[in-house]
Amino acid sequence: MTSPLTLVSENRSFGGWHRRYRHAATSIGCNMTFAVFLPPQAEHGPVPVLYWLSGLTCTDENFMQKAGAHRVAAELGIAIVAPDTSPRGAEVPGDPEGAWDFGHGAGFYVNATQAPWKDHYRMHDYVVHELPALVEANLPVSPRRGISGHSMGGHGALVCALRNPSRYLSVSAFAPISNPMDCPWGHKALSRYLGENRESWREWDACELIVGASERLPLLVDQGEADSFLAGQLKPDALARACAAAGHPLNLRRQPGYDHSYYFIASFIEDHLRHHAAALRG
Amino acid sequence: MTSPLTLVSENRSFGGWHRRYRHAATSIGCNMTFAVFLPPQAEHGPVPVLYWLSGLTCTDENFMQKAGAHRVAAELGIAIVAPDTSPRGAEVPGDPEGAWDFGHGAGFYVNATQAPWKDHYRMHDYVVHELPALVEANLPVSPRRGISGHSMGGHGALVCALRNPSRYLSVSAFAPISNPMDCPWGHKALSRYLGENRESWREWDACELIVGASERLPLLVDQGEADSFLAGQLKPDALARACAAAGHPLNLRRQPGYDHSYYFIASFIEDHLRHHAAALRG
Repeated sequence: MTSPLTLVSENRSFGGWHRRYRHAATSIGCNMTFAVFLPPQAEHGPVPVLYWLSGLTCTDENFMQKAGAHRVAAELGIAIVAPDTSPRGAEVPGDPEGAWDFGHGAGFYVNATQAPWKDHYRMHDYVVHELPALVEANLPVSPRRGISGHSMGGHGALVCALRNPSRYLSVSAFAPISNPMDCPWGHKALSRYLGENRESWREWDACELIVGASERLPLLVDQGEADSFLAGQLKPDALARACAAAGHPLNLRRQPGYDHSYYFIASFIEDHLRHHAAALRG
Repeated sequence: MTSPLTLVSENRSFGGWHRRYRHAATSIGCNMTFAVFLPPQAEHGPVPVLYWLSGLTCTDENFMQKAGAHRVAAELGIAIVAPDTSPRGAEVPGDPEGAWDFGHGAGFYVNATQAPWKDHYRMHDYVVHELPALVEANLPVSPRRGISGHSMGGHGALVCALRNPSRYLSVSAFAPISNPMDCPWGHKALSRYLGENRESWREWDACELIVGASERLPLLVDQGEADSFLAGQLKPDALARACAAAGHPLNLRRQPGYDHSYYFIASFIEDHLRHHAAALRG
């Protein structure tokens, strides 16, 4: 049987391997590229895995190149899988206005219901179901899953874990879009992918999902206080209020001076990896 | 007095600051951008500094974003300064053929003697003299200097240290172009910047300079064994032979499976930073 994965490139890194694979993604109807870091321990059998969801404009490459995560993942024996941030390709509609905050690079990790997006923009299904099944069947990666991400990907990580608590052992986020129903990035994306009926947006908003969460997976969230998107787009206070009201465990760390960049992520990724490892390694 | 430095951007990183500055570079006759990482210790006074020289096509940004060096530099209390890899601007001639291995992004850290390059391509003077003087006068950075780099920048680091041993306390390199007189990248650059007289090339070739070195600063060199440029361009064996013949101390580490990418640099940068810190912190 031939592998459904086509190796695009590989680099030795911290005694493990960074690899990029291409495959036909059936849930979103296009070819997709994702990256994986396999720690040295994966040579001896399946290892737990952290799924990382990147933010607006990113691909599978940004986190792997800039977060400095391989060192600690290699120490802890954890794989990292980084998908792309949207479906892509000539057959996938993008933003008709050509902006960077919708369409290609901006899938928002939802399952779209509206034309012309609904055929491809089903990143939630891809990230939660298709990609893990593919990875677990073809790479030395176990179903012991954590999930994390940044900005749009932080929103994605929180929503994936809150909607599918049985599929994840741990969750964290960097500067997540905490309340997409109530910010410009979220309005733009949700009104197009899901339509103008705001009721349908609730199931893709962490602050709304926390109210009725069936499991209380503790949230670790880092937020830079010098992040230029903090008040207008990210709204950590809304997340804090929702968690307090619902009794949901939240460790929200406000980091003075830090912005929205990968320098912020790199500064605190070790804490997140150790948070995930504590749950993933059992 | 106004500062000669214009702040382009800044990011908090590992308790310190990553900053990019722009300034008028008199030794090379154009405006230049460089990056600096200032560790937390720099808030209390000048700290030792590692100058990092990047490879072909890079700017000041690649190393800062991809090497994962800030964490260890913050721990050790060492600043890192990363210049651009060539003079740039509309007034600076590039490669007439538009290639990536000569001209903009490919200054080779020499002082050119040939028209039309000689007015601007004086990166050796810029890196060894102008930039340190500027940094030491305007930032909390001391004259305790180390130098390192990658590929073309590894060549640059070795040549800067060998030609100016009194100005550096430590030197190292990743996958350096060890013997530019005897490889295609070096031929192309040296024949244009310095002219066809190969005798003039000797003073810009680490293997040649090691023969007559007046001081024997120990070299730490990492080289990936899966580096696709190893045999054709980098020639670590020539460096090993030159060091052995001259009695020059060399720790050449051949790393199985590693390639020419920043994943290789990130995997071993901690060892290099500790090598420099041992000399710089005295």
